[in-house]
Amino acid sequence: MPGDPDESAGAPAPPLVVGLDAGGTRTRAVLAAAVDGRVLGEGAAGPGNALTVPLPQLTAHLAEALARAVPETARGRVAAVAGGFAGATGAAEDEPGHLNARAALHDALRRIGVPDCPVAVGSDIEAAFASAPGTPADGLALVAGTGAVATRIAGRRCTATVDGDGWLLGDDGSGFWIGRRAVRAALRMADGRGPATVLAEAVGRTLGLLAEVLPDGASGWSRAGREGYRMHLLPVVMAEPPIRLARLAPLVAGAAREKDAVARAILDEAADRLTDTVRALQPRTGERVVATGGLLGPEGPLTAGLTDRLRPLGLTLDWVADGCAGAVALARFACGDGG
Amino acid sequence: MPGDPDESAGAPAPPLVVGLDAGGTRTRAVLAAAVDGRVLGEGAAGPGNALTVPLPQLTAHLAEALARAVPETARGRVAAVAGGFAGATGAAEDEPGHLNARAALHDALRRIGVPDCPVAVGSDIEAAFASAPGTPADGLALVAGTGAVATRIAGRRCTATVDGDGWLLGDDGSGFWIGRRAVRAALRMADGRGPATVLAEAVGRTLGLLAEVLPDGASGWSRAGREGYRMHLLPVVMAEPPIRLARLAPLVAGAAREKDAVARAILDEAADRLTDTVRALQPRTGERVVATGGLLGPEGPLTAGLTDRLRPLGLTLDWVADGCAGAVALARFACGDGG
Repeated sequence: MPGDPDESAGAPAPPLVVGLDAGGTRTRAVLAAAVDGRVLGEGAAGPGNALTVPLPQLTAHLAEALARAVPETARGRVAAVAGGFAGATGAAEDEPGHLNARAALHDALRRIGVPDCPVAVGSDIEAAFASAPGTPADGLALVAGTGAVATRIAGRRCTATVDGDGWLLGDDGSGFWIGRRAVRAALRMADGRGPATVLAEAVGRTLGLLAEVLPDGASGWSRAGREGYRMHLLPVVMAEPPIRLARLAPLVAGAAREKDAVARAILDEAADRLTDTVRALQPRTGERVVATGGLLGPEGPLTAGLTDRLRPLGLTLDWVADGCAGAVALARFACGDGG
Repeated sequence: MPGDPDESAGAPAPPLVVGLDAGGTRTRAVLAAAVDGRVLGEGAAGPGNALTVPLPQLTAHLAEALARAVPETARGRVAAVAGGFAGATGAAEDEPGHLNARAALHDALRRIGVPDCPVAVGSDIEAAFASAPGTPADGLALVAGTGAVATRIAGRRCTATVDGDGWLLGDDGSGFWIGRRAVRAALRMADGRGPATVLAEAVGRTLGLLAEVLPDGASGWSRAGREGYRMHLLPVVMAEPPIRLARLAPLVAGAAREKDAVARAILDEAADRLTDTVRALQPRTGERVVATGGLLGPEGPLTAGLTDRLRPLGLTLDWVADGCAGAVALARFACGDGG
């Protein structure tokens, strides 16, 4: 383990903090020195969404990630813990997401033998925002991964939320939204409502359709072939959880790079939707926008498009990979060593 | 029973036919005289979608509807049966929907004691199309109810299908589509992305939200009220099957009658989408369009809008309530008495 927290045996043992980033697919824990935030350990476990993961599993995943990040001999020195949880998105602390996260985190800490200490619970978006350089307290946060949501942050707390309404009702411009558009574009090409696109072949291949029902690139099928494609595609998509459509988003990015007009239009509209989402927070010129999620990363398919659209509003994007650094910073604030 | 099929005891018993309309929510059977199609009995039972209702239940629902429509003493006189099934939409007769429908119908007839006779199985859309005056053989059929699909009919069989891709991927302009738009409009008003609309209050009331989180008509909420509305609405919608959103479509129709601009825009776009769906079938001027489904009925919210949009294409709408009359007509064809 890098920088073993026991290295200073003999000297008075310095206090430690733990930051948790509990997302929809993974829970990550980071152990750090309270005094300077130096990272001393890391651990990961299963999903940590405080609204959708049942409490026993949520507690188990937190305990597992914590136990991996914090060596047994160091647990007595943990002076504060902060967690950013997906599903704990509202401003009120008595909401189900917050209550579940707090209950599960206290239980998990007790289970692995961390003594009572300050525990701060917030949303994964607050943690991501706090991960930006300088640990900012105020500005806008934008998440564009499988889902999409923007929030206004004031005093390190979300004070307003736009979208984040989930795959059925919103998350406009998200990975799910893009993936769903890809399948729609394929079906619309197949039944004649939409123009030709290489997405039909790419979507069909990714969903495991037999070669005999795939179109030949963007050039299309016979009438019978079109019908066969549709009749094979629909049951495959409907048999899996809708959110799995998000895995098709990279196909759109790939097709757009090959200058497929339909794919480009999908990405353009996704960037428009995310811009609308940010704009609804009534940003002021020069405000910080901290982005996270794969669509907006250094190689993200929407990074350039969104940057172009936010520039006229006087806004620039900072991207962070996750909320771990911010959760550590918030834990350091919680034990009084953060600022 | 009106026109009891046993009324002619003494005279040679005239042959009978049965038409079935097996839809997603209900299965209906109609007993009729083979010679002139005069209706002699009716029965209904549970859902009859040949793809989504498991075979044992499908068989049971068919047997129940048939037993109610055909008195025991008349069963030996049934000379032909035709059924239009939701889920048996493809042109090929070896698809799962067709195969299930045929297997279940044969089993149900055997179970209630109908002797071997010609049995014709097709889609509910073919039956609806055949329900139009004159039992047409060729033209276009458009269904706009909970779902939305258009087909080209040639020789009383579907030869091409546009949309009907289900709630997740398509059914553009359907009741589900309109209901989902209603909730989206409410959420977009709540988070500032969209304009004020009376739909926010109407949707909230219908979904059972407490009065304290509802807006006051179209005039809106405080910031905290907006957030509360959203946080209460999302779990309620996500806890029910997505297709249930279709029940909100009448709220949009009501709000549009009250001149709510957002509701009107939703209905306009729905009519546009259905027009695109019909247009993809490459209609010829003067072709018959037989419509079915609540959105396009005599009082339907899209009837006027779609009629206006189809007129420039040289198309007029005929509406039928269901496929029962068509199924009876197809059964009469099957026993050679239909034309």
